[in-house]
Amino acid sequence: MLAVLSGGTGTPKLLQGLARLVGQEELTVIVNTADDLEQSGIYVAPDLDVVTYTLAGLIDEEKWYGIRGDTYACHEMLARLGHRELLRMGDCDRAVSLWRTFMLRRGMRLSGATSEICRSLGVRARVLPMTDDRVETIVLTEAGEMSFQEFWVARRARVRVYGVRFKGIGRAAPAPGVVEAIEGSEAVIIGPSNPVTSIGPILRVREIGRSLAKLRRRVLAISPIIGKAPVSGPAGVLMRGIGYEVSPPGVARIYRRYAGALLVDTGDEGLVLEIERMGIRAFTAPLLMPNLRSKVRLARHVLGFFRKSSEKPRAS
Amino acid sequence: MLAVLSGGTGTPKLLQGLARLVGQEELTVIVNTADDLEQSGIYVAPDLDVVTYTLAGLIDEEKWYGIRGDTYACHEMLARLGHRELLRMGDCDRAVSLWRTFMLRRGMRLSGATSEICRSLGVRARVLPMTDDRVETIVLTEAGEMSFQEFWVARRARVRVYGVRFKGIGRAAPAPGVVEAIEGSEAVIIGPSNPVTSIGPILRVREIGRSLAKLRRRVLAISPIIGKAPVSGPAGVLMRGIGYEVSPPGVARIYRRYAGALLVDTGDEGLVLEIERMGIRAFTAPLLMPNLRSKVRLARHVLGFFRKSSEKPRAS
Repeated sequence: MLAVLSGGTGTPKLLQGLARLVGQEELTVIVNTADDLEQSGIYVAPDLDVVTYTLAGLIDEEKWYGIRGDTYACHEMLARLGHRELLRMGDCDRAVSLWRTFMLRRGMRLSGATSEICRSLGVRARVLPMTDDRVETIVLTEAGEMSFQEFWVARRARVRVYGVRFKGIGRAAPAPGVVEAIEGSEAVIIGPSNPVTSIGPILRVREIGRSLAKLRRRVLAISPIIGKAPVSGPAGVLMRGIGYEVSPPGVARIYRRYAGALLVDTGDEGLVLEIERMGIRAFTAPLLMPNLRSKVRLARHVLGFFRKSSEKPRAS
Repeated sequence: MLAVLSGGTGTPKLLQGLARLVGQEELTVIVNTADDLEQSGIYVAPDLDVVTYTLAGLIDEEKWYGIRGDTYACHEMLARLGHRELLRMGDCDRAVSLWRTFMLRRGMRLSGATSEICRSLGVRARVLPMTDDRVETIVLTEAGEMSFQEFWVARRARVRVYGVRFKGIGRAAPAPGVVEAIEGSEAVIIGPSNPVTSIGPILRVREIGRSLAKLRRRVLAISPIIGKAPVSGPAGVLMRGIGYEVSPPGVARIYRRYAGALLVDTGDEGLVLEIERMGIRAFTAPLLMPNLRSKVRLARHVLGFFRKSSEKPRAS
């Protein structure tokens, strides 16, 4: 059993590789929900959806959100009515969010609704929201405070960041099964997602952070930063904004309390020593995942790391 | 100024004719909301939508509901998820209902949301829900009590009816502007919609029924029954179910307290005397409206009736 912490970009690609090697049944994915939002009265969970659609084989791999081949009739009609939605949401994608909202309004918890959606779409991995409580990412910028989606979608991250906070995180309990999945897994993977607003909120759910810190030796993080830049998304401007260097060592600094090891890109070999001085082991592998072959290759590296580290204790 | 009481079928066709002759600006349409329902957490107002889409030139004239050329991606995806919707709702149609639901959840009243939708779609007539309060049609059948949509859409009206009641009607107040529109109009038209579940609830909103009864002389009803059968819809089984003969005289009996005159089909000329004995004047005109020409012709008959009746008092 593997537990994987995931945001909406990067990690889903790795999930494709892992699923290929070990089978979806072996995966529990713990997903960030701090970017969740209400749009047109519909509860939208962008990261949960990317993970679910990826595992269901529906993800639009051009955009890495939404459903492949989706149409936008409803979204466009809303615009015609004068109601402009921040997220361009496809008709099939909307069906998923509508159904989730419907279940939530009937009193179901997000984890329950997520599991229903996964079951309906034939997802065999276990997909868990980090929490059933409402957490909201607030980005503090030179233009004032704003939601993550406003920062990322409406402003395209083109605004100076001074900080990030997660409204509600102090009271957020892990969703049912999350801590058990972490503690019952042979290995925990912190996927190559944005460490500030994707993985960050998961780690800050107190009991999740605590159990990772406790099991740190079997937690491997994969750097979402290669060289001086994130592979995708706004991780750079956000890391800088909260005072971290945008580099694998910057990532190591964020994760060192929770992960025993960090996988960095082969090209960042020269940074291994600097990272290890922070008390976190560092390994290298090619981290770019432009196609299935590279996803499987990275997954193999990740699994290899755990095989080696589980052998070591036996040898010592 | 004309006030028209409307359900979802029949009357919208007449509205097309009336709009052609007097212009939409001269029309206030008071619409049944007792068929309204929640579907997938969305507030659906079938009759308001048919009227609005008709006046916006968007109505699907094959089905007389929904938007012409609409797609069904969201509805079909919901079905794939295992969530079957009673009403097959198009993607653009859904956008309208979603937006309405969004406005209602923000505290707007149905009349306000309806006026926003009309404005956005370029409707120049005034479209008013009969009430902003929730009224629900319950059909009492041999198979138990059911909502109107369950009776009509799911069961296709193929079940014996014992009665109809309108939950909430006793407490329902007319929507703002309804009574003023009726009292300020030169003429009130009870359109050729189902007298039991479309016009019936409008008449039972106490203040609406009372003001029609008071102004009865300038109220003209158009029979939705030609010969022994309704032109469309379940009016027949419903009229029979509540103890009325399915015939123009049956319609006259339902409306005689509210309307001074009833327009029946030319073919029902022979029933005029029977109707007039009930204390309601009867006139004939061709009532079938298969095309725009026949809609305009019927509208001309309706307007002619009021012109004649407004001349008479002056002559006497």
